[in-house]
Amino acid sequence: MRKVKYHCATSLDGFVALPDGSFDCFSMQGPHVDDFVATIGTYDAALMGRRTFDLGAKLGVTNPYPSLDTYVFSRTLKESPDPAITLVSRDAAEVVRDLKKRAGKDIWLVGAGDLAATLFAEDLIDEVTLKVNPLLLGAGIPVVSHLEKPLSFQLTSSKAYDNGVVLLSYRLQARKGGV
Amino acid sequence: MRKVKYHCATSLDGFVALPDGSFDCFSMQGPHVDDFVATIGTYDAALMGRRTFDLGAKLGVTNPYPSLDTYVFSRTLKESPDPAITLVSRDAAEVVRDLKKRAGKDIWLVGAGDLAATLFAEDLIDEVTLKVNPLLLGAGIPVVSHLEKPLSFQLTSSKAYDNGVVLLSYRLQARKGGV
Repeated sequence: MRKVKYHCATSLDGFVALPDGSFDCFSMQGPHVDDFVATIGTYDAALMGRRTFDLGAKLGVTNPYPSLDTYVFSRTLKESPDPAITLVSRDAAEVVRDLKKRAGKDIWLVGAGDLAATLFAEDLIDEVTLKVNPLLLGAGIPVVSHLEKPLSFQLTSSKAYDNGVVLLSYRLQARKGGV
Repeated sequence: MRKVKYHCATSLDGFVALPDGSFDCFSMQGPHVDDFVATIGTYDAALMGRRTFDLGAKLGVTNPYPSLDTYVFSRTLKESPDPAITLVSRDAAEVVRDLKKRAGKDIWLVGAGDLAATLFAEDLIDEVTLKVNPLLLGAGIPVVSHLEKPLSFQLTSSKAYDNGVVLLSYRLQARKGGV
């Protein structure tokens, strides 16, 4: 079955963006970005929350990953902001569960915290890869906005880059009623 | 000059404890703990906030690191809970600044978020080492409770253990008026 992989940049204190949603504090060039771009070919779909989508839209980019089927999850948007984007206003978990059953490559969860929380709650995220930037932000958008209970992972790989970014990849461990 | 090193266990989402202050979700045995214990000999003083101190005190341990001069920072405690512990109720930054000027080994900042925030604000923390546990907590006590602005670090070492803990060490970069 296709996997859902949550792959995003974070600070040391677990934020994927500053409180205003911006994330240009994170390193946007260097070999960790080259490695990241190489992974995009392993996906054919991208999932993002409305706030994540809005960040690109403000810059005039309404279809940031044209090689992927992109789904924007929002209860407030009324129509798709771009013909190439599928707007999902109904139950996110149901849609992602259906997507996983279809044939295809893996599915990239771009972000962010609320959508991740919804999908973690339904056991729909299989792997997490964090590009840990050498920053403390002190506040911001969390990598996951809330969890019913802690989630335990298995580290599958780690790589430190010269620029101080550390790439950490994990597979969700089978739930055993708690950590 | 003696350095202040903030060395603590965190989750992937930047929490040093669950919302109730407990941290027994973190891995307490294995080679990462052996490495940690070996570092204690490089310190001769330990700094902790009252909440961190209380966690040990509840278990009957009022002097958890008898080989170190331990300072507990609290505005509410009226007297030292243990003769071996120095209670600090006045300005934490001033006390730590004085400690750094004295001869001695490095100083371990045990935790947690509020004390770290106070000391970061005064440029009194030199290095940060995080034992990143393979967990998402979703909520808890943050590694630093707030920052006036983001802080940028230089990665100095990284080590992944078989049990999934990743040890990341950083040196604070000189401030340049921003990240």
